[in-house]
Amino acid sequence: MPGVIDFIERKRDGGKHSREDISMFTAGVRDGTTPDYQTAAWLMAAFIRGLDQDELAWFTEELAHSGDVVNLPGGGIAVDKHSTGGVGDKTTLIVAPLAAACGLRVAKLSGRGLGFTGGTVDKLESIPGMNLRLSTDDFSRLVDNIGIALSGHSLSLAPAEVKFYALRDVTGTVPSIPLIASSIVSKKIAGGAGAFVFDVKCGSGAFMKNARRAEALAGALVDLSASLGRASVGVISDMEQPLGRWVGNSLEVMEAVEVLSGGGPSDTRDLSIALAAEMLLLSGRAEDMISASKLAAARLADGSALEKFKQVVKSQGGDASVLDDPEHALPRSSGRAVISAREDGYVSRMDAGLVGAAARALGGGRMRHEDAIDPSVGLGIFKKIGDFVSKGETIIEVHYNDERKLDEALRPLESAYDIAESALPRRLILGRVTRETRGAAE
Amino acid sequence: MPGVIDFIERKRDGGKHSREDISMFTAGVRDGTTPDYQTAAWLMAAFIRGLDQDELAWFTEELAHSGDVVNLPGGGIAVDKHSTGGVGDKTTLIVAPLAAACGLRVAKLSGRGLGFTGGTVDKLESIPGMNLRLSTDDFSRLVDNIGIALSGHSLSLAPAEVKFYALRDVTGTVPSIPLIASSIVSKKIAGGAGAFVFDVKCGSGAFMKNARRAEALAGALVDLSASLGRASVGVISDMEQPLGRWVGNSLEVMEAVEVLSGGGPSDTRDLSIALAAEMLLLSGRAEDMISASKLAAARLADGSALEKFKQVVKSQGGDASVLDDPEHALPRSSGRAVISAREDGYVSRMDAGLVGAAARALGGGRMRHEDAIDPSVGLGIFKKIGDFVSKGETIIEVHYNDERKLDEALRPLESAYDIAESALPRRLILGRVTRETRGAAE
Repeated sequence: MPGVIDFIERKRDGGKHSREDISMFTAGVRDGTTPDYQTAAWLMAAFIRGLDQDELAWFTEELAHSGDVVNLPGGGIAVDKHSTGGVGDKTTLIVAPLAAACGLRVAKLSGRGLGFTGGTVDKLESIPGMNLRLSTDDFSRLVDNIGIALSGHSLSLAPAEVKFYALRDVTGTVPSIPLIASSIVSKKIAGGAGAFVFDVKCGSGAFMKNARRAEALAGALVDLSASLGRASVGVISDMEQPLGRWVGNSLEVMEAVEVLSGGGPSDTRDLSIALAAEMLLLSGRAEDMISASKLAAARLADGSALEKFKQVVKSQGGDASVLDDPEHALPRSSGRAVISAREDGYVSRMDAGLVGAAARALGGGRMRHEDAIDPSVGLGIFKKIGDFVSKGETIIEVHYNDERKLDEALRPLESAYDIAESALPRRLILGRVTRETRGAAE
Repeated sequence: MPGVIDFIERKRDGGKHSREDISMFTAGVRDGTTPDYQTAAWLMAAFIRGLDQDELAWFTEELAHSGDVVNLPGGGIAVDKHSTGGVGDKTTLIVAPLAAACGLRVAKLSGRGLGFTGGTVDKLESIPGMNLRLSTDDFSRLVDNIGIALSGHSLSLAPAEVKFYALRDVTGTVPSIPLIASSIVSKKIAGGAGAFVFDVKCGSGAFMKNARRAEALAGALVDLSASLGRASVGVISDMEQPLGRWVGNSLEVMEAVEVLSGGGPSDTRDLSIALAAEMLLLSGRAEDMISASKLAAARLADGSALEKFKQVVKSQGGDASVLDDPEHALPRSSGRAVISAREDGYVSRMDAGLVGAAARALGGGRMRHEDAIDPSVGLGIFKKIGDFVSKGETIIEVHYNDERKLDEALRPLESAYDIAESALPRRLILGRVTRETRGAAE
């Protein structure tokens, strides 16, 4: 197909694609008429040469509309929240019902995890009976009826994006900011929401290891959303250490329920409130950050966020009673091991990447799409950076089922933390990127 | 296979490969364990980022040794001549037997043409009975016995190169000088010769359209050969206009026999003598260019080059008697058309690319590997750049079999030439690149 070769050559030589050419190419990939080796060659050319704002917008729009697009009925825009993924990041489980309890329409499509622990879908699956494969009709009906729906991605949404993503994974073309942005935003648009909050994680446990890269991705997401007519904000949050206390699938559901009940670790709670407040601001339901945060905190305190979570679990076939006593009702592992402090001091490092590797070694994450996940295993991070610890006190608690996997998990944990004479707590929110801050910077 | 992804990522980011990594990657491509999409992604990264001298030498060596390597028995090094391909380029048919008649061992492996007209193999196939699929054993035995063998590439030689080449063709990664050089040199090394003459064509009918690119390729070929222990020379020859008088498969065999008989067009003859002289110099059979050229010219004049050609044709099962009267014995087309001058003047342009397109339109070339070639069709270029032409005189003669194809061929021919008030003949040999000239330039 000479058209495709011309297209590849244009990007190879640093040229700009037309909207029509991008449309033709994306359709060929979706339909399978363009062979993978041609798609791979273009991906590498696009990775190295880049895509400009126009190309990125056109490409993303083609991906978004390559299959079904969720059509949410009227009644105000729906807001979606997306996290780039981190260790112990259970905020979606909290933020989605919290925002819905504040009166927002929340249409939340999530992925399965490929990495340290499961994704939101995997975590929700630790609730017995929960259906996370909603049809697009059921999904939009639920948003309309109860203001919230939680589902895994359907293959009928953005199928071209699914193909590009699978190929990027095996051709060394994942960490390209334009390609990442187009992948995220196209799925969000196909999901039907009208505004997006992007939680871009930054640090050892995140895809973006440093602030410069995280800011670049947040900026690309906000710019791309704007060029496609969607309001959005990018929050850059810390992922040098795990978020909250628990890492692991049912353990994270348990922590989410704690926060939804008005308690829980302060960092998980603070970030959840901040993200929900951003959603309220975006939708126009709050005038400023302070009133938005107050509203969100009140919905946690008065139990309405937890009620909303129970409502959506029940509506999707899940056993909501487990949420009344998650510590006993959710799957738990048989074994416990602890890592204790050998000296007094302040925790100065708690490497999220290594903690995540340990969680995966225990069976809590997957290396390949076909791997099964053990929902019960995981880690409790009892001391965070800046905390004082006495000799003999527990720093990390390991929940395991298999001795051999425990040994594998202890290896990364040995070098995962440092204790020093002094250490300050880390800032949780490192930056905030909006269309306005972008405009000012230009 | 994470090893391959690491390898792709290294080149993507402009890094340098190790010898071991190149060996591992090339083996995976040859064996088919590396999927085409990964090879394609690497090809694009290598195209854009380049390969340095070390990488290029290692890669080429791996390609060369990815299958059988012709092992020529002792008795002095064999010299091979390679042309990058042009319109009317029948020099291999002349130079190979001519060099053998001068006492050289000539081991000539040729490709089929993908482009304007057939390749050397296609041209030789217009001789009835000629076997151009020699086994590597028969090939080396023939070189040993009669000093010359002519064959198409066997799939058992450089099979990894065959795979890379096929994939480059469909992924927009053909015109990369390092990749072209590695492709050419690896096949030459697998063919068993110890020294190479590269005829790099330059102009509208060639792959290299300008002198800068042609010089860069000639330099890359000579450098790469030297780094692999092979003496070589690069000759840059003009391809703005077709070489010689005839373009087409059996028509070019006819012209080759004319030159081998001591006649023929002066440009075909001059370039053939120059290339044969380079081979003699490289092998040490001549002391300088003048004595080498004299020796070659004498072997054309005394009929021994033609005798050598008949000998190799006969040895490979061909009907050598057709060479006594090629004009009548070779396949001829049924139709003749002429393009005549509309005014007096000097031919100032005779576009080799457009003449080649006409030859292909007549059925003399192929667009795809599976296309069949009509050996009988072609064009006679009766006037070359700098020649005077009178109104009504024939400029181009078209040999065709199919009226519809004739119409298609006449379209490019209409704009293929110009007639002006004055025009100078073109230089035939535009440059010469050796290891010494490279050294001096550095």
